[in-house]
Amino acid sequence: MSIVVVGSVAFDTIETPFGKRAQALGGSANYFSIAASCFAPVKLCAVVGEDFPKEHVEWLAKRGIDTSGLVTAAGKTFHWSGKYGLDLNEASTLDTQLNVFAMFNPVLPESYTHADTVFLANIDPDLQRRVLEQVHDPKLVGMDSMNLWINTKRSALERTMRCVDVVFMNETEARLFTGEHNIVKAARAIQAIDGRSGSLTVVIKRGEYGALCFRDEHVSFVPAFPLEDVFDPTGAGDTFAGGFMGWLDRHLARGEAANEALWRRALVMGTVMASFVVEEFSFDRVKRVDTHEIGARWQRLHRLTSFDGAVDLV
Amino acid sequence: MSIVVVGSVAFDTIETPFGKRAQALGGSANYFSIAASCFAPVKLCAVVGEDFPKEHVEWLAKRGIDTSGLVTAAGKTFHWSGKYGLDLNEASTLDTQLNVFAMFNPVLPESYTHADTVFLANIDPDLQRRVLEQVHDPKLVGMDSMNLWINTKRSALERTMRCVDVVFMNETEARLFTGEHNIVKAARAIQAIDGRSGSLTVVIKRGEYGALCFRDEHVSFVPAFPLEDVFDPTGAGDTFAGGFMGWLDRHLARGEAANEALWRRALVMGTVMASFVVEEFSFDRVKRVDTHEIGARWQRLHRLTSFDGAVDLV
Repeated sequence: MSIVVVGSVAFDTIETPFGKRAQALGGSANYFSIAASCFAPVKLCAVVGEDFPKEHVEWLAKRGIDTSGLVTAAGKTFHWSGKYGLDLNEASTLDTQLNVFAMFNPVLPESYTHADTVFLANIDPDLQRRVLEQVHDPKLVGMDSMNLWINTKRSALERTMRCVDVVFMNETEARLFTGEHNIVKAARAIQAIDGRSGSLTVVIKRGEYGALCFRDEHVSFVPAFPLEDVFDPTGAGDTFAGGFMGWLDRHLARGEAANEALWRRALVMGTVMASFVVEEFSFDRVKRVDTHEIGARWQRLHRLTSFDGAVDLV
Repeated sequence: MSIVVVGSVAFDTIETPFGKRAQALGGSANYFSIAASCFAPVKLCAVVGEDFPKEHVEWLAKRGIDTSGLVTAAGKTFHWSGKYGLDLNEASTLDTQLNVFAMFNPVLPESYTHADTVFLANIDPDLQRRVLEQVHDPKLVGMDSMNLWINTKRSALERTMRCVDVVFMNETEARLFTGEHNIVKAARAIQAIDGRSGSLTVVIKRGEYGALCFRDEHVSFVPAFPLEDVFDPTGAGDTFAGGFMGWLDRHLARGEAANEALWRRALVMGTVMASFVVEEFSFDRVKRVDTHEIGARWQRLHRLTSFDGAVDLV
């Protein structure tokens, strides 16, 4: 199996209470691809400008990421500037220069169109659907979005949501989308948007507080990995989705059943991968991660959370 | 074994987005006792005014709670008024009438002084220490506090913290106490206050986001039970502590080792008990809880959080 991801590849200028970095490599599809490629072959669809470093594209290819869908257009690469306060859960956007991303019209190379797994990172929901339509028979489709589309393209967003299997939202987006403050009610309302009686899986990302997954009538939750130094949360959500979808793709490809236990482990793997990316700027930390480190954090998370299911109360 | 608890017994007037209740029974020692008495014999030390209903005292006694340390003083019972917004994690205090609580000088009945477990609910830290000195040889001592004492009686508070085994703080208090925003660093700084090289266990309560326990070099965390209707969070922290300390007392009394697994299960039981109290005003919900319901929520929490510790990455 393999995963097609469409989204942004960007430069980020980021300020956190712990430092500042100009022109760092970023973008949702970039973060997603790097995380997912630890588990499954990834095919990247995005656009960059003529200023984008060839070395990074070569580095992606060396990781086994297919970059034949990464188009270079005339102009500059998408540039986002943001700032975080001590509460690292939310960024303030200082500046957004869409540049070549403004005219992004994703066309998948023929070799991408037979992928079993698709991830629609945060772009215009109409574009998300246009990409999905190019894939012949996807088995698993995930998507992300943002407050901009909830506020300005609500019905297009809902149409896209009805075409996917799993939607990732952060807590603030879930509340904005549903008008429900209680997160369980909000997630249930998002599941119901589907109209297919709860077949939409909803993953709620809560930053340092972990993540919840609502699937059919089941709920799973995994706390965030306890880090003393969270340096830069940029890309955490996309890295989380990369770990989650990559892990699922890997195991579904082996013919494993898509049961609760598998989805719960996907939630754990998203959590593990996100715990690396936030430790340094950009991909600095996550690009050094090996399977040994991933396994060690998985096992540590298991030790930190597991308890005896039998309770003796008599 | 048995648990001595000292704290407040009060009337609360509470407004949440879902309703209002005047003169509801409340108070930290009340909430703690009711939760802890599901697991261990409890001895309550507090003061009430002449207006306090005898029926409630009789009801506590019927639950096996020793009320011989519950003194009636001339005057009115402590009265707190508070209001919650949609973010139920923090209350705004509208009014505090200390009444008889202002002159509270807790003296333990002789029958209380041989307890193995002590819980010092949120009162003046000097009074907390005075109570603790009256217990001959406690094996396990827990305490709670609040922002008032952190801001006004810091050194007295630290002295009390050095006399206990486990301190409960909510996230905001932990940040205020340490000046650290990162909660792992904050908890480590609280552990270090002890001066006994980390023998102080720190429980950080995060409301709807669950709870963390830092013990020696270990960390445990349990997410909150996912509820669609959180009605009134008043008393959640004390009920949590009651479940936690009551569970520990019960198992230590049976000679079980105070190992990580036992402390993790205490964290789970605190979470389970708190999940009941927030569902209705005052003790309305928690007083109906039976061991069957407690066991069912424990098992549900286990199902919602457990995952396979082995991760196959090759």
